Amino acid sequence: MPGKMRAVIKAEAAPGAEIAMVDIPKVAPGEVLVKVKATSICGTDVHIYEWDPWARRRIKPPMVFGHEFAGEVAEVGKGVTTLEPGDHISAETHIVCGVCYQCRTGQAHICESVSIVGVDRPGSFAEYVSIPEQNAWLNPPDMPPEVASIQEPFGNAVHSALSTDLAGKTVLVTGCGPIGLMAIGIAKAAGASAVYGTEVVPYRLELASRTGVDLVLNPKETDVPREIMTATDGSGVDVLLEMSGSPSAMHEGFAVLRRGGYAALLGIPSEPVELDLTNEVIFKGATVYGVSGRQIWRSWYQTKALLSSGAVDVDPIITHRLPLEDFEKGLELMSRGQCGKVVLRP
Amino acid sequence: MPGKMRAVIKAEAAPGAEIAMVDIPKVAPGEVLVKVKATSICGTDVHIYEWDPWARRRIKPPMVFGHEFAGEVAEVGKGVTTLEPGDHISAETHIVCGVCYQCRTGQAHICESVSIVGVDRPGSFAEYVSIPEQNAWLNPPDMPPEVASIQEPFGNAVHSALSTDLAGKTVLVTGCGPIGLMAIGIAKAAGASAVYGTEVVPYRLELASRTGVDLVLNPKETDVPREIMTATDGSGVDVLLEMSGSPSAMHEGFAVLRRGGYAALLGIPSEPVELDLTNEVIFKGATVYGVSGRQIWRSWYQTKALLSSGAVDVDPIITHRLPLEDFEKGLELMSRGQCGKVVLRP
Amino acid sequence: MPGKMRAVIKAEAAPGAEIAMVDIPKVAPGEVLVKVKATSICGTDVHIYEWDPWARRRIKPPMVFGHEFAGEVAEVGKGVTTLEPGDHISAETHIVCGVCYQCRTGQAHICESVSIVGVDRPGSFAEYVSIPEQNAWLNPPDMPPEVASIQEPFGNAVHSALSTDLAGKTVLVTGCGPIGLMAIGIAKAAGASAVYGTEVVPYRLELASRTGVDLVLNPKETDVPREIMTATDGSGVDVLLEMSGSPSAMHEGFAVLRRGGYAALLGIPSEPVELDLTNEVIFKGATVYGVSGRQIWRSWYQTKALLSSGAVDVDPIITHRLPLEDFEKGLELMSRGQCGKVVLRP
Amino acid sequence: MPGKMRAVIKAEAAPGAEIAMVDIPKVAPGEVLVKVKATSICGTDVHIYEWDPWARRRIKPPMVFGHEFAGEVAEVGKGVTTLEPGDHISAETHIVCGVCYQCRTGQAHICESVSIVGVDRPGSFAEYVSIPEQNAWLNPPDMPPEVASIQEPFGNAVHSALSTDLAGKTVLVTGCGPIGLMAIGIAKAAGASAVYGTEVVPYRLELASRTGVDLVLNPKETDVPREIMTATDGSGVDVLLEMSGSPSAMHEGFAVLRRGGYAALLGIPSEPVELDLTNEVIFKGATVYGVSGRQIWRSWYQTKALLSSGAVDVDPIITHRLPLEDFEKGLELMSRGQCGKVVLRP
Repeated sequence: MPGKMRAVIKAEAAPGAEIAMVDIPKVAPGEVLVKVKATSICGTDVHIYEWDPWARRRIKPPMVFGHEFAGEVAEVGKGVTTLEPGDHISAETHIVCGVCYQCRTGQAHICESVSIVGVDRPGSFAEYVSIPEQNAWLNPPDMPPEVASIQEPFGNAVHSALSTDLAGKTVLVTGCGPIGLMAIGIAKAAGASAVYGTEVVPYRLELASRTGVDLVLNPKETDVPREIMTATDGSGVDVLLEMSGSPSAMHEGFAVLRRGGYAALLGIPSEPVELDLTNEVIFKGATVYGVSGRQIWRSWYQTKALLSSGAVDVDPIITHRLPLEDFEKGLELMSRGQCGKVVLRP
Repeated sequence: MPGKMRAVIKAEAAPGAEIAMVDIPKVAPGEVLVKVKATSICGTDVHIYEWDPWARRRIKPPMVFGHEFAGEVAEVGKGVTTLEPGDHISAETHIVCGVCYQCRTGQAHICESVSIVGVDRPGSFAEYVSIPEQNAWLNPPDMPPEVASIQEPFGNAVHSALSTDLAGKTVLVTGCGPIGLMAIGIAKAAGASAVYGTEVVPYRLELASRTGVDLVLNPKETDVPREIMTATDGSGVDVLLEMSGSPSAMHEGFAVLRRGGYAALLGIPSEPVELDLTNEVIFKGATVYGVSGRQIWRSWYQTKALLSSGAVDVDPIITHRLPLEDFEKGLELMSRGQCGKVVLRP
Repeated sequence: MPGKMRAVIKAEAAPGAEIAMVDIPKVAPGEVLVKVKATSICGTDVHIYEWDPWARRRIKPPMVFGHEFAGEVAEVGKGVTTLEPGDHISAETHIVCGVCYQCRTGQAHICESVSIVGVDRPGSFAEYVSIPEQNAWLNPPDMPPEVASIQEPFGNAVHSALSTDLAGKTVLVTGCGPIGLMAIGIAKAAGASAVYGTEVVPYRLELASRTGVDLVLNPKETDVPREIMTATDGSGVDVLLEMSGSPSAMHEGFAVLRRGGYAALLGIPSEPVELDLTNEVIFKGATVYGVSGRQIWRSWYQTKALLSSGAVDVDPIITHRLPLEDFEKGLELMSRGQCGKVVLRP
Repeated sequence: MPGKMRAVIKAEAAPGAEIAMVDIPKVAPGEVLVKVKATSICGTDVHIYEWDPWARRRIKPPMVFGHEFAGEVAEVGKGVTTLEPGDHISAETHIVCGVCYQCRTGQAHICESVSIVGVDRPGSFAEYVSIPEQNAWLNPPDMPPEVASIQEPFGNAVHSALSTDLAGKTVLVTGCGPIGLMAIGIAKAAGASAVYGTEVVPYRLELASRTGVDLVLNPKETDVPREIMTATDGSGVDVLLEMSGSPSAMHEGFAVLRRGGYAALLGIPSEPVELDLTNEVIFKGATVYGVSGRQIWRSWYQTKALLSSGAVDVDPIITHRLPLEDFEKGLELMSRGQCGKVVLRP
């Protein structure tokens, strides 16, 4: 589709971003062009915007960024057989090689040669984005675009929370950012007998308190391990879902993880973390699982099931709906934790 | 404790049972005498009452039967260290050997030398029952005795339903007797995206419809496979919980089990069942698990968690509360399926 | 590649097969033409040859059959990127849809729309066969073609045997046809503490006795359950690998499966089987898994690892190497069980 | 049994130990007195001998230490029913409470109130030791006492190695002390396609090279990650068994662990370890399991199966057989890594 479109671009190798008119992507064979209806902001986008060390190594400006989205297929490339214009889709944003050991054994989420929409190729903070056919996920036509867009991070929460069985278990979620908030809802839906949360930003503490969490604590004001041990009659929690990347949250989490407990780590620490492996993991007989992306497509099917059955309600988590032009406001809100999920509408 | 008590006894090797005054059990070393507050009727009790072939081989009259119960510890035997008079308890009714391979590797529910309360030794349809200390499960003092009593069959439902992960899965429960009804509630609590049930007795169909089931069908009136395939968009269900022991229910269940699905079999067929293994199991890549009793004590901890968190409400399933004297009425109701759970109060 | 080739064809809807000159397959886009170096005979080929009820429903003559093979890529179709002429390959013979729930969640072996080489499209009893690029498995150039060819059935044995952990376990393999023989070797390599086998054909009993099996029994001459219970000190076996499809073998297997044991069923019964589910599965707390094909590509990687490390030696299992022209001799040997694996060389 | 016996005691709160004549332990009810035939030296004994910070906090002198042993029952306490004088036994040295959540759900190896023979109560570096009946493991009478004694640490190696399936997998064992050496043998027996080892002490490097390891490397002399990546064709290993407690070994291990790999940590770091969780665990999608003791009694049954079938030969690992009087020599050898397993004979 020839023509120009509005897009948020990282124009140069420096902090910031801007709205610009850029070419609508050409549709390569095997790809589909999507008219973006909603595109939500991920922590990764904040890293790109703020131009942190990771972004400096990985991003090649000028580039459209953003990767969580929902939209309608506008055009299909040569050889596309499973989609047609008008289809409502979201996207698995990890484009995998399909031929490595992991891809060929049901572990494509840890493909050896992944490239990522909005990171390694043009993204979705734009009127249009092009993605491989094989990365499209068909949505029901009546799913609100905001909800459809946040299925991608919801899939991360699903991957984390449902990597172990939760029915009748106690769960601690450290970090109540958007994915932590989703994980609370998923854990409750999956039958956790109690779900606890920790968070330091008052806005998100307040938000967490409206998700059905049994207890939410601010480590800056409370002795988290003592409170959790009291709440669990001295047993500690069965499951830790680490969503903050903060070393102190991790230590609090491991401190209350019961012997034989399970920890899923999703939050990305910015530095190496000093762990007391002897007491935090080994003598405890704990199992620790590193969560990378979404299980393709298991996490998506689970996401669909939990959202379509009404088991998890993400509406309260979508706190801001902004026009694309207000992307900086959205990125600032995310940066300061003054929001749940922020969705942009191009 | 010397003295006499009222009890329901199988007096002789023939159909029927009667109320009689019998000796209060002597408390052997390592055992505790329990004052029974509530004792619920199991299908096994109906088999004993009706004197079916299994009962004829296994039961040695005269004997007090009944095994699901809750009560207060009245007296403790020599060497008992973890319980004292006044404690509120229920009982794991399988008395296991503790030394066989299964017992020593966390699979005590399939102990090679199990003996069962109310089957191999005097039971709980009585004012008092004596059990080994190691079979006692401590209840919160404020748990209603009826609820405490039915934790034992609830544990069977838990063992069945939570033997696989259910979050975001579709589930079919074939047979809506008391354990099937409990399984429906457990599956919903564990995050199943849809739970379907089948049942032939109208009373229980009606009861099932009030458990939160998504769809309940009568195979005598409906083409169950067709309805379930329609409800699941042609995919079939992820999980089958077979609670009826009926061959036709099993075939209906396997017919709608999706490729790669999981089936837990709890219902006991009275005769061998002709299975089309090729299509019902092998080509389907299905996994079939035989459920025997409760995982000791995993199922009990899960039961406690699901009941105490309010995740499952068993009140609607307890349809009849009768004095011990009305045991025959209770057994008849069970025999004809005109009840949920029937609880006797001595 | 224009031209004619020799091939074994099912010429008409009747028992038998013949050698004929047929067109070399055209190479469709995304496919590769393979010069066949070795092609081994599967039980399925015998069914097609003998024209059994299954074959009558499924096969559309005239057609080249055969599906286990190894060869060299002779020509690549349009769009093929991962293979080139001269590559040594074998083939996963199940061509899967890639888009159904199973395919998208790592369970492609139970794809809802599979088509099979040599069953639903021309096969490998020929000088050339064409297969989709995505079904090719790259072999080391120095792997003997006979060994490379039988990786496909070896993958079935791997899928069965390694669907549970075997280290330190006792295993019974019922049925010592080629896949049973392979399963014995795999179970030994995977650390089974003892592997027992049963088989009724003397030729295969003798063959089994040379695979490292600890004990091999003929149910026609021996009380199998008694012997196995004796050999296992009364415990029974931990794992049953059912490779015969015979109901009596199944019953013998379940009779000696220990409580809590695991059974993988690969053999295809020709009729429904009457199972005493109560005692064979339910009270035993057994797990039964239906084995369909190979886990794609997990079973292939495992196959490669076990063969290349020398952990399993398949040479003794390949009992006959025949020119393609002697296909009838090979099919007859298979039909009567007078062989291990029979490999044809076009 | 009244009388005195020779024993190695920690006489006072300071480095060292001595032989002394002490009272033969009284046999409490439920316990058995064992005449020690062989008792092997564990790293823990070295810590007690050298009086490291852990020992200072935990050990209360004067006390007999040592805990790995085999012997004959000399006397049984009141209430003992499963053992009699003359029985050959070894001991699970973790005495568990039996009533905590872990004990009651098949995870007794991480009991909340464990006490340890030779650490919290008198140990086995003596002519006699008393242990609870429930901690005894019956040995075949013909098992050599040295082999019977080292089943306890072998069980640690089994717990580590068999906590995941190894058939067809590549494995790296970091640290070739006695448990690492055992783990190499177990991994080979369980079908690992290749087992690599790392070790810094030349004596143990040489010992490792005789265990069937595929490649053993000295990190002081070799670039371990580069060598392992080369040996695995760039894939890295599927499984890491960390047996050293050394941070650098851990980093080398995680560096070569393939995406989606599994790590069991048994070695106890003496200090907190700085982990690059982002790259070593999270993005890698790794699973990390902390190994504490032996799974009771699963690890023991597996140990028995692997030793009795001859799948693992521990003879080469037992490098020193010394009289009890030479305990200091044994402890020194262990301290300097100049041995495999050292067994004392009282």
